Amino acid sequence: MFVGAQVSLYPMTDAFVPVILSSLKALDPWRKLLRIETDDVSTLIVGPPETLFPALREVYISAAASGHHVVLRCTLSRGCPGEPDDPICQTAALSAPNEPLAHRQQAALEAVRKARRTGEAARAQFSLYVLGMGAHMTEINGCIEFLKASGCFDRAKNFCTRIGGDAGPVFATLEQAFCRFGPPEGHVTLDLTVSANSPSTSG
Amino acid sequence: MFVGAQVSLYPMTDAFVPVILSSLKALDPWRKLLRIETDDVSTLIVGPPETLFPALREVYISAAASGHHVVLRCTLSRGCPGEPDDPICQTAALSAPNEPLAHRQQAALEAVRKARRTGEAARAQFSLYVLGMGAHMTEINGCIEFLKASGCFDRAKNFCTRIGGDAGPVFATLEQAFCRFGPPEGHVTLDLTVSANSPSTSG
Repeated sequence: MFVGAQVSLYPMTDAFVPVILSSLKALDPWRKLLRIETDDVSTLIVGPPETLFPALREVYISAAASGHHVVLRCTLSRGCPGEPDDPICQTAALSAPNEPLAHRQQAALEAVRKARRTGEAARAQFSLYVLGMGAHMTEINGCIEFLKASGCFDRAKNFCTRIGGDAGPVFATLEQAFCRFGPPEGHVTLDLTVSANSPSTSG
Repeated sequence: MFVGAQVSLYPMTDAFVPVILSSLKALDPWRKLLRIETDDVSTLIVGPPETLFPALREVYISAAASGHHVVLRCTLSRGCPGEPDDPICQTAALSAPNEPLAHRQQAALEAVRKARRTGEAARAQFSLYVLGMGAHMTEINGCIEFLKASGCFDRAKNFCTRIGGDAGPVFATLEQAFCRFGPPEGHVTLDLTVSANSPSTSG
């Protein structure tokens, strides 16, 4: 299994460099559990979903706390057939093979209910892709049903879904969407945008 | 057929609002050929690939010409089974069904060779997803072969590929990757980041 994300942070301010650098310090507590490599376009973060999503949440919260309009962008992937297995990605977060959709939806909802609130708002927009199988829309529609019951659902848009609320349940919802839909050994990707402090909104 | 993109522009400057608004004016020549809707996270642009990609290129060039570090982010999709057919998306840009991979690669290379140069550099990073079929990696690998021969190939990264060069051939390469790989009636998506004027690079 290979799990990870290409991550970019876009602070809409002249001082974008210090905002990025200080926000990435939020990764420090997780550095031993993740492999992290940066270039001029994105930062690769490799590791299990149960570490990766909390780490992304803390980077987001740190950036949002700057007060600037900031966007966190991630291309997440698990199980890509083109990537080698990596022991750092060993995970207990994926469902058992053949676990019925209804059970997975229920487990996902329970995980979101338990999520710690952070006091920071997050507006997220994402697309989940289940690759390498014919009936991918069954899993996508199953995920959308979960999202509608998650307490974070905002609205469906063309090509993606918007969720919002406190960053704690929002990132827990994203983690559950990524882990519980599509086969555990399948190739699943998530195209994610999380926005903070946009002047186009009240929140 | 339904084709379009959720598009966001991230200028890393305190003056991000005027940079966004002036860059979106680059869409004006295409407005009759596209359906455009904006919210606080992204702008939906619906229309055929042969209009959509040049329009995105012009938005990018306009934003890059501001001199600020700017990122254009797009979630592109064609043929999503959950979207209704839309006459505005009628296109001649997709390959014929069952056209062999080698022919499609050749046609893609010819289109890139003909692309007009713009004088503006573009560094792009993207993932192409071919959904709803078992052998998706055959199409992805065929696309990567095309990219390596395109003249724009930079390097493979985990989960994505980097290309770069003049914005003309770069956006032509992206259009060909989107149109020529995966079945013409299939569900294909592209997760795209294009970066200008990064202080982390010389270009």
